[in-house]
Amino acid sequence: METTTAPTDEHVRHGYTTNKDALLKRIARIEGQVRGIGRMVDEEKYCIDILTQISAINAALHKVSLGLVEDHVSHCVVDAAVRSQETGDQSIVTEKVTEVTAAIGRLLR
Amino acid sequence: METTTAPTDEHVRHGYTTNKDALLKRIARIEGQVRGIGRMVDEEKYCIDILTQISAINAALHKVSLGLVEDHVSHCVVDAAVRSQETGDQSIVTEKVTEVTAAIGRLLR
Amino acid sequence: METTTAPTDEHVRHGYTTNKDALLKRIARIEGQVRGIGRMVDEEKYCIDILTQISAINAALHKVSLGLVEDHVSHCVVDAAVRSQETGDQSIVTEKVTEVTAAIGRLLR
Amino acid sequence: METTTAPTDEHVRHGYTTNKDALLKRIARIEGQVRGIGRMVDEEKYCIDILTQISAINAALHKVSLGLVEDHVSHCVVDAAVRSQETGDQSIVTEKVTEVTAAIGRLLR
Repeated sequence: METTTAPTDEHVRHGYTTNKDALLKRIARIEGQVRGIGRMVDEEKYCIDILTQISAINAALHKVSLGLVEDHVSHCVVDAAVRSQETGDQSIVTEKVTEVTAAIGRLLR
Repeated sequence: METTTAPTDEHVRHGYTTNKDALLKRIARIEGQVRGIGRMVDEEKYCIDILTQISAINAALHKVSLGLVEDHVSHCVVDAAVRSQETGDQSIVTEKVTEVTAAIGRLLR
Repeated sequence: METTTAPTDEHVRHGYTTNKDALLKRIARIEGQVRGIGRMVDEEKYCIDILTQISAINAALHKVSLGLVEDHVSHCVVDAAVRSQETGDQSIVTEKVTEVTAAIGRLLR
Repeated sequence: METTTAPTDEHVRHGYTTNKDALLKRIARIEGQVRGIGRMVDEEKYCIDILTQISAINAALHKVSLGLVEDHVSHCVVDAAVRSQETGDQSIVTEKVTEVTAAIGRLLR
């Protein structure tokens, strides 16, 4: 899905790598929360308490998503804007904007 | 948070235990999906692909939530309705309905 | 979609009628909010401010939905539970629970 | 909240104006849908049918939001990117990206 590019270019495109450690910690915490609801089901805890935990996981995933959207727009889209300004090729921007909008649309559902 | 009751009563109250194995498998799969996005971040995959994966996790968690809501209403709320009919104490039902509605409200956010 | 029944039965089934006036006021306010974003678009207001308004409408609609779910469970589902207890026909409850769960599922999307 | 600027600049900044008529039509349709649920409540229609209608309104509002996000990113953020490239002032972009991310975050809740 991803075209292989030189490492330096990768770092320009993949903005989240700047906060990679923080992001990985957050995702590891969410993984632990999901394992936690597995344990709650196994121990036959009260449904409502499990639902509350799932809401917490949803909120944590939303934060991760938002962080990725922010990084993507500030790196990938902005990059495309500058390149399209230099080359006069507007389609680079349109493509990136359409792509991130579609991704946000999937998150909203 | 949960009052300790006899095992048999627990099983009446905690309806999800009937599909416990299927539910545990689903949760284990979600845990794997979360671990997967950790790996994607670590390997600096494309943001949009990670966002798509998060949308899939959201959808999977929604399904788990819905299953728990369905089990809870069909066991816990229905149970309370029958007991309140027998005892004439309406408050048992009101409490359960308020509780599940609040849980759904947290999921909607 | 709806089977026509005698007025009294309607009132038992349609629990929201108890707070009908409050509910109608809330919906009228949401209608005004939607008209408001139309006006904002017409006057070419700042996108972000319109998005903020839409978030407020989403929240208001969520509250209306939750109120309807609560009324539905406390009237319709509880009613079905009592009737199924009397008649021994469990399918009445199952049908109602499946129906409300599907409705909640559509709201979660 | 909005700084008053010359009309031409407005049109650059407020990208949604290009599809203004289509957008206004969509919003008018949503207004009608909200009025419709008011009528359903007034006529004491079945809760589940009203909930289904609310889900349709949610989906319609999501589409409007997404359209506004797309226009905002492709105009406002891209504009800021180009200006910041010209002036060397990165803060213009950062501000715009933070602003749109916050708006998306409010939609996700």
